Parts: sequence; C-alpha cells; structure tokens
Amino acid sequence: MTKRIGILTGGGDAPGLNAVIRAVVLTAHNAFGWEVVGIRQGFDGLLNGMPVMKLTPNVAHDMLARGGTVLGAVNRGNPFMRRTRLEDGSEVLVDAAHEVITRLHELNLDALIAAGGDGTMAAAMRLVDLGARIVGVPKTIDNDLSATDITFGFDTALVTATEALDKLQTTAESHHRVMVLEVMGRDSGWIALTTGVAGGADAILIPELPFDIAVVCNKIRALQETGRRYSLVVVAEGAHPIDGEQEFIIKGDPMYQGRLGGIGYLVGNAIASCLDAEVRVTRLGHVQRGGQPTPRDRWLATRFGSAAVHFVAQERWGHMVALHGTQLIAVPMEEAVKIKRVNPDGEMVRMARHLGIVFG
Amino acid sequence: MTKRIGILTGGGDAPGLNAVIRAVVLTAHNAFGWEVVGIRQGFDGLLNGMPVMKLTPNVAHDMLARGGTVLGAVNRGNPFMRRTRLEDGSEVLVDAAHEVITRLHELNLDALIAAGGDGTMAAAMRLVDLGARIVGVPKTIDNDLSATDITFGFDTALVTATEALDKLQTTAESHHRVMVLEVMGRDSGWIALTTGVAGGADAILIPELPFDIAVVCNKIRALQETGRRYSLVVVAEGAHPIDGEQEFIIKGDPMYQGRLGGIGYLVGNAIASCLDAEVRVTRLGHVQRGGQPTPRDRWLATRFGSAAVHFVAQERWGHMVALHGTQLIAVPMEEAVKIKRVNPDGEMVRMARHLGIVFG
Amino acid sequence: MTKRIGILTGGGDAPGLNAVIRAVVLTAHNAFGWEVVGIRQGFDGLLNGMPVMKLTPNVAHDMLARGGTVLGAVNRGNPFMRRTRLEDGSEVLVDAAHEVITRLHELNLDALIAAGGDGTMAAAMRLVDLGARIVGVPKTIDNDLSATDITFGFDTALVTATEALDKLQTTAESHHRVMVLEVMGRDSGWIALTTGVAGGADAILIPELPFDIAVVCNKIRALQETGRRYSLVVVAEGAHPIDGEQEFIIKGDPMYQGRLGGIGYLVGNAIASCLDAEVRVTRLGHVQRGGQPTPRDRWLATRFGSAAVHFVAQERWGHMVALHGTQLIAVPMEEAVKIKRVNPDGEMVRMARHLGIVFG
Amino acid sequence: MTKRIGILTGGGDAPGLNAVIRAVVLTAHNAFGWEVVGIRQGFDGLLNGMPVMKLTPNVAHDMLARGGTVLGAVNRGNPFMRRTRLEDGSEVLVDAAHEVITRLHELNLDALIAAGGDGTMAAAMRLVDLGARIVGVPKTIDNDLSATDITFGFDTALVTATEALDKLQTTAESHHRVMVLEVMGRDSGWIALTTGVAGGADAILIPELPFDIAVVCNKIRALQETGRRYSLVVVAEGAHPIDGEQEFIIKGDPMYQGRLGGIGYLVGNAIASCLDAEVRVTRLGHVQRGGQPTPRDRWLATRFGSAAVHFVAQERWGHMVALHGTQLIAVPMEEAVKIKRVNPDGEMVRMARHLGIVFG
Repeated sequence: MTKRIGILTGGGDAPGLNAVIRAVVLTAHNAFGWEVVGIRQGFDGLLNGMPVMKLTPNVAHDMLARGGTVLGAVNRGNPFMRRTRLEDGSEVLVDAAHEVITRLHELNLDALIAAGGDGTMAAAMRLVDLGARIVGVPKTIDNDLSATDITFGFDTALVTATEALDKLQTTAESHHRVMVLEVMGRDSGWIALTTGVAGGADAILIPELPFDIAVVCNKIRALQETGRRYSLVVVAEGAHPIDGEQEFIIKGDPMYQGRLGGIGYLVGNAIASCLDAEVRVTRLGHVQRGGQPTPRDRWLATRFGSAAVHFVAQERWGHMVALHGTQLIAVPMEEAVKIKRVNPDGEMVRMARHLGIVFG
Repeated sequence: MTKRIGILTGGGDAPGLNAVIRAVVLTAHNAFGWEVVGIRQGFDGLLNGMPVMKLTPNVAHDMLARGGTVLGAVNRGNPFMRRTRLEDGSEVLVDAAHEVITRLHELNLDALIAAGGDGTMAAAMRLVDLGARIVGVPKTIDNDLSATDITFGFDTALVTATEALDKLQTTAESHHRVMVLEVMGRDSGWIALTTGVAGGADAILIPELPFDIAVVCNKIRALQETGRRYSLVVVAEGAHPIDGEQEFIIKGDPMYQGRLGGIGYLVGNAIASCLDAEVRVTRLGHVQRGGQPTPRDRWLATRFGSAAVHFVAQERWGHMVALHGTQLIAVPMEEAVKIKRVNPDGEMVRMARHLGIVFG
Repeated sequence: MTKRIGILTGGGDAPGLNAVIRAVVLTAHNAFGWEVVGIRQGFDGLLNGMPVMKLTPNVAHDMLARGGTVLGAVNRGNPFMRRTRLEDGSEVLVDAAHEVITRLHELNLDALIAAGGDGTMAAAMRLVDLGARIVGVPKTIDNDLSATDITFGFDTALVTATEALDKLQTTAESHHRVMVLEVMGRDSGWIALTTGVAGGADAILIPELPFDIAVVCNKIRALQETGRRYSLVVVAEGAHPIDGEQEFIIKGDPMYQGRLGGIGYLVGNAIASCLDAEVRVTRLGHVQRGGQPTPRDRWLATRFGSAAVHFVAQERWGHMVALHGTQLIAVPMEEAVKIKRVNPDGEMVRMARHLGIVFG
Repeated sequence: MTKRIGILTGGGDAPGLNAVIRAVVLTAHNAFGWEVVGIRQGFDGLLNGMPVMKLTPNVAHDMLARGGTVLGAVNRGNPFMRRTRLEDGSEVLVDAAHEVITRLHELNLDALIAAGGDGTMAAAMRLVDLGARIVGVPKTIDNDLSATDITFGFDTALVTATEALDKLQTTAESHHRVMVLEVMGRDSGWIALTTGVAGGADAILIPELPFDIAVVCNKIRALQETGRRYSLVVVAEGAHPIDGEQEFIIKGDPMYQGRLGGIGYLVGNAIASCLDAEVRVTRLGHVQRGGQPTPRDRWLATRFGSAAVHFVAQERWGHMVALHGTQLIAVPMEEAVKIKRVNPDGEMVRMARHLGIVFG
C-alpha cells in the first residue's frame, strides 16, 4: 500500500543532511512507490504549521553534494514548548507535543523520518510515546554517539580542520611559531584528537582530559631543545584547565569574560606567557559545519537515508539507524542520547601519546 | 630489552604508506625505545642486499602527509625468485627465500613489519614459515580485503575519483553529454560503487556484475525521456560485458587489442553507437594512487602502524593488523589473501539500485 | 530608459560562465534597472525559437560557484545553418542568420551579451553586421586569445591538471615510473606549459613545438643517470611529432587509428619502447572543463559580466570585454578570433628550458 | 664567468617563496652555470653570521609545492639594528648595516636576491647604497604593491578565504545566520574585496572605506525582507568604523582591549545587537599565509625567481621583478614601498556595489 512519509532535520548543521533527504526520497519512490514531503525548520515547522515541501525525485536529484539542509533546521531546547499568552496578559511556555501529533495526522503522514542529534531524538521519543511513527537518523559532526561507529558530517569537519592545521604547519615552520587551532567539540574531543593526529600536532587539549598548561609549555620547550622551532596545538572548544578556570584566568586575559574569543585564545596567551614565543591562534568556528560533504560523508549519509526508509517499511518506530562495522542496524533511540567520549585511558589516547603528543 | 625492527612496503602504491612508516618509527621509539630501519624496494631490497635506511623520529617527522612511500616499493610476482646464470651459460629463476632469511639475520633485525597487499602477505607468510618474525599491515586502495573493514588509501582514491565525477557532472549538464569515468578496480568494484553513489552516477559497471550495455543505454534513454539530458557512467577497470568479450568487440573498436584504452573507452563507444549521443570518456588511472592521503587515511594508517609495533611486542608473528568496527585486532595473514567482493545481491547494490542506479 | 537584454553562452564549457550570467543580471538590475532574459542553447536557441528564461536577481543569486552554464551551450560549426527540406524531398542546409535577427526583435531585446569562444564571436559579428546590438564576453579554457591577458576558466583547468600531476608525482617517485599526463589544448599549449611548470614536469609537449620523442627519452635517461628514477611528461592533446605522424606510428600502436586514445597514449608507448621503463598514461579529458570555478575565475568572470553590461550602456556593439594588466577594456570582436600561441622562442619557453624542462 | 649568488627571504610568510628559491637555483645553474647559497633567517642571518645552505638543483627539486620558506624568515623592524653592550654594562641598539656588507664579502657573493615585502626592500636599498649588488623579488599576500599587477601568495590566500566563505554560506543558509569572516589585510582590502566578490558576500568592510555598522545592518534587514534569511559579511583585519573606535566600543565589548579577538568579533557583536540575529564569527588568521601554493602562485613565483636571475646577469642592482600585463619587467625598489590601496571610487568597488554588496 502506498505511503506518504515526512522528513525533517533538526539541531546543528552537519554536511550530508541533504544527501540523507535525497536518499530517503529516491528510495521511498523507487523501492516502495511512496511519496515524501519535507517539513521545514524541524519540529518547529510542525508546531507552527508551516507548509510542507513536496519532495519528488526530480527535486531531490541535485541535493547530493550540497552542504546544509534544504529543509532548514533550528537548534534550540525543547522544541515542543510554545509561548502562550494567558488571560491576564502574561506569557508562559506550555508544552504542545500533542499539537504536533495532531499536525502529523493533518498532514496524513504514515511515518516520519527525523534526522538530528540527541535533542531531536529525545523529542522524537516523546512523540513515539504519544503514538507517532518515527524512525531516526543520527547526526552530529562531533561523532560522539555511542550507538553508532561513526556519523556523517564528521569526516567533512575533520578534513576542514586538518587542512587548516596543514596550512598552519608550513608557516609555523618558516617563522618559528606556536600555532594554536581551536576546533569544535564542546563535550567530546573526537574532532580535536583526530585532527591532531592526522595533522601532526604536538599537543591536543580535549574536554575529557583537563589540561595543565605547564605540560604543554614543557613539551614545546623540549621540542625547541631538539632543534624543532615550531609547534602545533589543537584545542577542542570544550577543553578546560586542570587547575580550575579561576587559576587560568589569573594568567591574565580580559577575553575570558563570556568566552567570546574562545578557549583557544586563552591557551595561546598562556603559552605566550610561559614561553615568550610567538603564538598565533585560529578559531575555525562554523567553517567546520559547512561546505560540500566529503565523498565518504555522502556515501554514509546516503546509506543512512536509504536504511531509514527500510526501517519505516519494517515499522521500527522509535529506532534509529546505526553503523556497526560494515553493517547498518536499527538501535533504540534511547541509545542515541548516550554520548561516546574519548577514553582518557583507551587505545587512541595511548596511541597519540606514543606518537609524542601531550594532552596537557 | 631494546629491539631493532625493520619495515618494508610492497606492491602497488597507496596513500598513507608514509604515515604507517612514521607511526612505526615514533611508536617504536617512544613506547618501547626500539630502533627502526627501513628496507628499500620491499622484499627485492632484502634479496639484493640493498643498504637499509636508518629511520629516526626526526627523519620520520615530516612523512605524515606525503603520498607514496619513502622506502620505494616494487610490484611484481614472487619476490624471492632470483635470476641465476648456470654453468652452461643459460639463465634460470631460482627461489632464494632462504637468502632473505639470512639477510634478515645479517641485519640484526628482531622483527619485520611488512606493509603490503596480498602478494606481500603471501611472501611474508613463507618467510614466517621459515622462521622469520613478521607482522603485517594490509594495504590496498581497492578496499577488497575480507579481513578488515577498511584499508587506508581507499578514502584518498575515493575522493580523487568523486572529485572527477563532480567535475564531469557540471559540464555534462551544460552540454547534454554522457560522461564515462573509468576508475580502478581490476577484481572488485568498491571504488566504482562508492564513487558512483557519492557522485550521483546513473550506471555503475563492476567486475562482480557482468554488464549488458543495452541496460545502460535503456537507462540513459529513460532519463532523456524525463527531461534529463545528461548521464554519468562509472566503470571499474575490471568490468566486463555479460555476453562475452567477443560480442562486445563486434560493436567495433580497434582499441580493444591489448586493452590499451581501457574498458571505459569500449563502454563509451558502445553507448555512442546505441544512443547516438555525445559521449566523453575519462580514464583516471594512476592519479587514484597518488597524492597526499586524506585526513582519514592518515589517521587510519597511523593507527595501523602503531598497532603493528604493539603486535611485534606481543610477538604476533604471521598476523596482520585489521579494523573491526572501531577496534584494531590481529588476524592471521592467511586472512589477508581472501578477497572481499561486492555482493551482487547485498545491501549496497540493492541500495544503489533503489537510488535509480543500474548495473548493466 | 529601461532596457531588456538577453544573454547566451556558446561553445565548449568553461568554469565561470554562470558567474558571468549572475554578474550580468545583478549589474543590469542594480546599476541600470534593466531586465535580463537568458537564451538557452546559444544561437541554436535563438534559431529554433526556444522559450527564454527570465533571470531575476533571485534566480541568479546562487549561480556564482556553479560549474557549467544554466543556459546550456552547443558546440558546433556555423550556428545559423538550418537543415531544410526542399520540395523534392531532399534536405539542404540554408543560412538563417536573418531569422535570428527577426527572433531578437520578437523577443524585444534591446541588446544581447554573448559569452563564447571564437566561433561565438564570429557568429556575433555576422549578426552585428546585420544590425544586431551585441557585446561579447570571451570564453576559452585554453587562454589562447591575443586580445585579453587572460580568460576565465583557464585557472580552474590549470588547478585540475596540476592537482593530477601532483598526484602522479608521488606515486611515480615511489614506483620509479614515467608518468604521462595528457591535458587539453588542441591548438595551443598554454594549459600544458603552465601545468608542467607548476607541477614540476621534466618534459612538456605542445602544438607549437613539434616534438622529437628521442629528445624526451634522452632527458629521462639523463635524469636516471643522476639518480632520479621517475619522470613526469605533460602532453597537450594537439602535440605532434616532428618527424611526421607516419614515422611515429611505425613505433607501433593500433590505438592510433582515429586517435581514440589520444596522443598521450602514443607518447607513452613511444617512451616505453625507447627506454624499457614502466610508463603510465592519464588522459584527463573533460574533467578539465568542469567543476566549480576557482575564486580567481569567479572574480574574473564577475568582472567580465559586469563590464559587459556597462559596454551595453555605452553601446559598444561588436566589441568584447578584455583584460589588459589590471584594466578591463573593450576590444573589437575581430580581435577575439586571433589566437595567441605559445612563442617557441619567447620568455616562457626559455624560462621552462632553464628549469630543465625539454620540449621534445 | 661563473658566479656565486645568495638568496634570502624576509618578512611575513607567503606561499610560493620556496618556488622562487627553486627557480633561482635551477635557472642560475642551467642557464648560467652559477652556484647558489641560501641565507637563513633573512638579513638577521647575515647579521649574525649564520652558516649558509648550499642550494643545488637536487636540493631545490622538491621545493616547488611546499608552503613556507626553507630558508626561514623573520618579521621585525630594521633588520640592521644589533643589541650591543656598552662598557658601563648598559645595552643599546646600534646600526650594523656595514657589518652585513662585510659579511656579503666574506661569503664571496657576487650578488644577492632578496625576496620580501616593503621592509625587506627598504633594507635592501640601504645595502645597495652601501655598494651591495641586490635584486629584489616582491612578496606580499596582500597584493598591495603599486609596482606590480600581482604578487604570488595572494591567490593562495584568496582560495583559502573563499573556501571558508563557501563553507559558511551553506550552513548560514540552513540555520538563518549572519556569518562574519575576518580575513587578512591590515592596510589594504584586496583579500577581503576579492574574497567577498568571489564568495558572494553581502557586505565587505575594508580599511580604505571606514564603515558605518548601521549600513551593514540595514542591508541585512533589507535582505531579510526579500525572504533571504542569511547574510555573509567579510571583514579585513584593518577595517575600522567611520564614527571612531570610541563610539564602536560603546556598543560594548570587553574583547576590544588589545584587539585580541579582532575586528571581526566587534563587527559580529555590533550586528547581533542591532539585528537580534544569530551571528557567528570566524577569524582565519595565519591559515591564510600557509599551505601549498596554488598552481598559479607556483607559476608566478617561478617566473619571478627566474627573472631575478636574469636581472642579476643584467646587473640591475636596486631593482625588483614586477609583472605588467603578461610581461616581467624590472622596477626600482623604491617603487616597492608604494602601497596600492583599493580605490573607494574605482571600478572594483563600483562593480561590487552593483552586485549588491555594501561597504558599510
């Protein structure tokens, strides 16, 4: 029997979202003869009754290599809270999850595919509990979901960050500088660790391993003594000093307030003060979330999108796609909320240490 | 106790070999205090007594992102056959594997790490049988080893091929052309399949699925009828027609002799004759084996090299490194010879078909 | 007074055409308040009365970095020849240039901007002679117009070809091979010369300098004697041997018939026979015409498109945009037909020879 | 008669310096039979008597595509000032230009080629006045020398900055954000202008045109009203507000002190406060000075290096290489100090305005 399914994208941006959408549309059409509509702005679009976008194979054709998401996405807290004016004129936030359920019925959707991060999966689970038929596609450039070996978007972010580190390396070498590169990773250090190893960093600072800036300075000093006159330091945005932020501030930095400049600048300043070296800081920011997905991310996102349609056919509500080894499997969405952090005592950190990298 | 280990690279080129060498040197030095020497030209270098190259951390430092292998590699049959002149003046090939064993002793090597493909692993196994202490690192850009989820070099080849397909797409669209891209893959279609999916191909021809050119022509014709006036065809170099090569030649092509021009040209000519369309053929060739490894390949190659040193410490002779999911494990080298082909009835081909791709 | 102007693109593909179209639309709209319509398929579209495409700033917005041309382009001889059936049933080609003039009037076009190569400019000149108001934008990836210092598309082709040569270099070095790269350039050697110098080639074969394959072989042999065991040879598709093609064929190659495989294969075979070296050939083909334009090509194409609109305002009919130094000027279209070839005795060839490069 | 010439690199980094060095070495060797030695650390190396580096064609061979400079470079004020201890124990800076002249004689250098920016050229001119035989090669990624149409390094910086802007565009579009990209350009806006046009920016802020942040906000608001919900703003590091910095600070930013975070953050904060939009800031920093030079920069740097050797042969002391149109000429070094700024009323700014770009 023909179906009509919806797709939405939620949370922060990740290269490959459009490839997921395209794969869903083509697979639904070619393998099952189903119709697909796109929901704009994630759950917000459902809540606010935004008009949906008809997604034909023709429309989807060109999306494969486009960065971003044609459906738009919002990145905020509980997507079901709606600002409502009370009789006395005051405004309150009320939960409107049931309205979203109603909206799904109005749209005649037999199922919904939700591509997003842990926030999106948490919201989807609530709707599933209320009877909605939803399958999830995990999305995070941070690659920190324990449920899946890898997520799309991560490879593109890794390429962007490593290319930046490669460029910093050449000019660091010519000018005998310490280069600090701040990359994304608020809660986990995967981008920093992988970029640092792939780009030949001397120090990598990650949230999982609070750093002692003196260790970094000692490492750089030791390198200088062997004749190498430049160093590369990769810092995850969520990295923090071992001795408490208060201590770190004392090393003196007006930028600290509000962290406008990012931890990278703090680290740079601290190194400059302990070593009297020339230090330069680069903070890549959202460059890491944008751009065409790499071929690998397009391939992975396409597989994820295609599998999601099959999971709809199998009525795996409340499950999401995951990669285990070379196989795609369905795991309960609850799994998606579990974060996979870098293990400070695990193989990868040990490997990096053996390469000569310090973690501060 | 301190050790002295050797490393060699064999077989065809794969981006990431230098990253393996570097990781071996740094890990041996930092984690174990061992010395590493590089053996030039693979087993040939051992057989011919070439001088070894001392590999210090300083020497290894800059190798991470360099394509190729600083040790050189040769790609020929049994590396232990040596041309020898008999008393009567005639020449014969005699097996000299025992001389290689002698040479390993002369070099005072406690162990050897051999990075290479199935030929290299087969040779290594013979030496292990003769008492040599060897650990392997698998290498093939084709990604067709059943023993490991993935090999380094493959990602770089995929990026090169997909970038080419992306470029062909834009000009195909402007000029209403059929573009044929021939990629590597003599025995397996992984590069073709992955490139084709990541680059939005309409047809993918792989060795595992003998093709009927009429199916390709019908697909292109069907697209034209829906208004899309260009098509992209990816052909693995080992692809071959279903109806026997004889039949295919009859469609007329002097280039066939010796396959100088490659199967891509044959396919292009066949399409041109069945459709009267403008067809252009690109054969990427060795471009796919060269260039800086991608960040992912550097990361993977570094992990492989590092693990190989640990396997030496664990005396896992006759084993090689493999990736299973996110874990590195040691598998017997016998496994390395087993080829992983694209399953014509498997998930990936089915997925590609659902995207609308034909396999001929 | 408000105007309505048309734009068409003709001839072979060149990255940057869409940037020209976008700049024309935005400049016409913002600076003059004019309307722009796009004519599909070049002069063919005019001749065949194809519906035009309304080009608003909104439509044009996203075109900047897209390869190809949204208007399509055809690459054939005299675009005004129309196949017509006579009373006796036979078919003849008749010149229909006057019909194009009529069509321009029907479309209410105050002026036309034609972006194309020498064929497009020759056609435009004929129409100007018949009273049409046309301004030209020069387009050729070959960069061989004497009227302008440089053309857009060339830089993108140069990057594509040089990246390929870079990749070949790394694997050539590891495996001691001679790599032959055939690049575009039927009549002029600019891409080959620039790629060869930028990518460190040892020999460059261009149409302007018929080559003696023995000179190439001697160069490679001389390098081998100094210890360098690989070589890079760049061949323009229009390169040809000094001693006549007949002689060259004798060196034996069935692929020669119809040049299906390209001169690169011939050169590769010839080197393999004179040196007994391992040779690999790559023929990039249309990859060089595709892909996103480089930033430089986007900038140049945007300047060209913008200037063309100003030249329309200045009623410079029969002129085209050209870059002299850092200035954009209007030159008569007649100039566009004059080809700028590499001067065999000029500064650039001399420079390349001083780097050690031979031209065969 | 055979000569021995020296080469040094000075000032900030620019991709292509190694290509200059390589071209000098190969041209001197092949065309003239001269020997070349490399002087480390610019004029500092001469002043401090650092050992020189013998540069043979073999050594130079691999340098073509390497970023940075193998000779090192320092970026400080007058390179001839030397810290000297007086008899009373106090330290003073004394001019030691004459010692550099002595050192040039000691090194038996017949001539010196100095690649650098205006500081290096000013220092070279002083030495020429003292009798030294020096030829200059202009170097600045900012492309702001009036004496030459273009300098090497600029194209690479442009590519790096435009790729970043491209990436920001895709994620800005998905998430309805204003993206601010700060690029290099302390005194001139060439990188910002070219990047902004090539990457489709909505506003470009350059040192030559003090900006009114309200104009930027109005532009973004106007775009929002037409339905476009994202904007791209490119800011040169030397851009500054029209109403004086004091005014700008009042909009409130602790980061301002010492400009640690850069003007980009200030602009981002100001936009966030006038529009209540989501704003993200990226400051590329030294990423723009690093990395492999683009093919165009390798070609240009090679031509510059080669020409410099010919100018030595012609004894053009006190002159430097410059590109005029397609020709290389020798201009007096005095010219090198003249900065070419973006003309606020010139063709390029006008062109950008016609595309819809505001300059604040």
